[in-house]
Amino acid sequence: MQSIDTLIKAGWIIPVVPERTILENHAIAINDGRIIDTLPADAADKTYQATESHNLPDHALIPGLINAHTHAPMSLFRGMADDMPLMDWLQNRIWPAETRWADQGFVRDGATLAIAEMLHSGTTCFADMYFFPDQVAKVAKAAGIRANVGLVVLDFPTIWANDANEYISKGTALHDELQHDLLISTFFAPHAPYTVSDEPLQRIRKLADELDIPVMCHIHETADEIENALQQSGKRPLQRLDELNLVSPSLLAVHMTQLTENEIELVAENGTHVVHCPESNMKLASGFCPVQALMNAGANVALGTDGAASNNDLDMFGEMRSAALLAKNVAADASALPAFEALKMATINGAIALGLAAETGSLEKNKFADIVAVDLNALKTQPVYDPVSQIVYSADSTQVSDVWVAGKQLLNNGQLTTLDTESILNNAREWRDKISEPES
Amino acid sequence: MQSIDTLIKAGWIIPVVPERTILENHAIAINDGRIIDTLPADAADKTYQATESHNLPDHALIPGLINAHTHAPMSLFRGMADDMPLMDWLQNRIWPAETRWADQGFVRDGATLAIAEMLHSGTTCFADMYFFPDQVAKVAKAAGIRANVGLVVLDFPTIWANDANEYISKGTALHDELQHDLLISTFFAPHAPYTVSDEPLQRIRKLADELDIPVMCHIHETADEIENALQQSGKRPLQRLDELNLVSPSLLAVHMTQLTENEIELVAENGTHVVHCPESNMKLASGFCPVQALMNAGANVALGTDGAASNNDLDMFGEMRSAALLAKNVAADASALPAFEALKMATINGAIALGLAAETGSLEKNKFADIVAVDLNALKTQPVYDPVSQIVYSADSTQVSDVWVAGKQLLNNGQLTTLDTESILNNAREWRDKISEPES
Repeated sequence: MQSIDTLIKAGWIIPVVPERTILENHAIAINDGRIIDTLPADAADKTYQATESHNLPDHALIPGLINAHTHAPMSLFRGMADDMPLMDWLQNRIWPAETRWADQGFVRDGATLAIAEMLHSGTTCFADMYFFPDQVAKVAKAAGIRANVGLVVLDFPTIWANDANEYISKGTALHDELQHDLLISTFFAPHAPYTVSDEPLQRIRKLADELDIPVMCHIHETADEIENALQQSGKRPLQRLDELNLVSPSLLAVHMTQLTENEIELVAENGTHVVHCPESNMKLASGFCPVQALMNAGANVALGTDGAASNNDLDMFGEMRSAALLAKNVAADASALPAFEALKMATINGAIALGLAAETGSLEKNKFADIVAVDLNALKTQPVYDPVSQIVYSADSTQVSDVWVAGKQLLNNGQLTTLDTESILNNAREWRDKISEPES
Repeated sequence: MQSIDTLIKAGWIIPVVPERTILENHAIAINDGRIIDTLPADAADKTYQATESHNLPDHALIPGLINAHTHAPMSLFRGMADDMPLMDWLQNRIWPAETRWADQGFVRDGATLAIAEMLHSGTTCFADMYFFPDQVAKVAKAAGIRANVGLVVLDFPTIWANDANEYISKGTALHDELQHDLLISTFFAPHAPYTVSDEPLQRIRKLADELDIPVMCHIHETADEIENALQQSGKRPLQRLDELNLVSPSLLAVHMTQLTENEIELVAENGTHVVHCPESNMKLASGFCPVQALMNAGANVALGTDGAASNNDLDMFGEMRSAALLAKNVAADASALPAFEALKMATINGAIALGLAAETGSLEKNKFADIVAVDLNALKTQPVYDPVSQIVYSADSTQVSDVWVAGKQLLNNGQLTTLDTESILNNAREWRDKISEPES
């Protein structure tokens, strides 16, 4: 008998890699934070002596979900401004509210609320773009969740920096500070082609290569973005980015609702990753990302919720479902984006896009034990013909019972182990009271 | 002090009628199954002496949700066949499975599973179309939920009847049997223009008038349906139905993803109701219903989940959200179908369509007390700037804590009072084992 830290037995294990594999009545053995074995439950009892054991016969184990694009602190703006188009919403509601409220304390409290919501709904890794990424990293570290914090860059001043140079230098300093962290990593986050000019984009491209980190950018989010760019420069934004050598395997292009066939080819051929945010695109009426066409061309498509202010939650179960449903109608093909592909988008595809595929994104030997247990013994997920179908098309995120990140249990039978739900809810109410007060 | 049956105090009451009203810290007084008053919570304590009192300061009360189109017994086929186009799915998977399995016992067990799921997720009234509507009525009655059972009509034989005449005569007999029931009502349910010929449609039109019940039919669900009809008769299905005088205020037209501007006008001018099923339309790649255009033209649009085999749940919270998100992108207008309109679609609009607006669909005096309490004190619905936004865009149906139908509490702090969850789950597993067995 080999001594290990944790053994989890489950009714179904869905490792995601290898593809379309469903292991019934199997167990995962974990030691030193990593998966060391996956084997039949019976054999596990004869092979391993675990300090901690879990028996989950009604549950499916899946890789921890990866939210490849969000603005975590904006959860404090959830539901503050709905049913408005992107630029009106940004310019008249969100940016003024951020100018007034988004200080370090706001970022910490908002990110903590977001992390609590994400852990409850099975997200073990998120890629964030917001001011004070240092504070987001800090609360993520305290919570034990895996996080990628974006080193935000804009041309114009905000509370975080005054000009592109300062954004970049604060970003590289934060990268240096975090570079040996096991759970936190960084990426460059130029906001959008229309808010960052050529010179900083070229510097970002060079620095990202030197530091070996990805670049994430909102690209082709709306038809207006393309039109404005054409009027100003005669070029579509993706063409401009390509001329700046940014369309590469280190680019995560978020949204991408407006794509010509040539652009789909360009993205696929250059190994650029697309981060699809279906609910945000629908809510802001931004357009329909041609997900199946991108996948057919060979592009890697990951999945993100975007911020809670334009979604209005951070629930990757809902996002998988919206992605799978919407893609079929957009492709006019009911076999488009089948359930298993949606689960891949929310796990391994996100890990690949973020450069983390050696660490997380599937339940494979030697990867970190980032694991989610989903209780399928609920009215809305019975009967179970296919656990992947139930997870993507039927399950509520509230059926997530247990969550581990790098072998550490962060959700235990529905209870957070590193965060205090009551104080998080109270903080949220206090922010609501402050933010709702009429401006004096 | 006036003696009453029940007093429910809540943080927010959203009566839906009058429009856009949110009553903070109010109470609803219920007697003999009906709402007799809505007043500030403080005043309620001085006015009413209730046999049963509920204090729900973190909750919003909304009218019970109305699922205006489903096939409840099909919940036993949930997840059995996904990612397939409508006719392939129907002809090669669903119809063969129904021929083999859909007997009275299947219908009772499937409808019971569906009713349990619907009550848990805040649905207090559903309109069903399936074989053995007598059995659906029976289990609905036992559960205490409000139900409209469709008197199904087809040209071809099934386990329920052999030809259109027999469907109609069994239907009228069931109508006569149920006509004085307070919770169960009936409607004619000719399956679709392509499965019911002119003669029975004309008889249905006449009988529906005589019995004063609505007619519900799947219409313009896919582009193929229109093409086939044009090839066979030179007419689009809606034109044919109009020539048969069916396009009237007693018609509920389900799906309607393929509509010309003239057809939108026709529907609106004739007072015909549309039942929108966004998730089913997406999952089967049927097309996009032009919801905002229909509403702009003045048509009444209700909301349905369709059956669990093409959704794959019966969750009206998810359906409201999908409807509100999708409509914006379809209309290319982020202000389309705002949150309050989505809540109307799921409540009063459904009641109007089904001819039940005097009884249910809003929290108004003298209507039946069909009420749902939603606990907003959850991570994913905090902070609360606007409870309607949180209910439509953020809440999980698992936040439904309590449900009353005609004043009787059917869900009490998350527990069903008239149904046994464990035995329903066991039944579902037994059906799965039977249905999954290879055919001998």
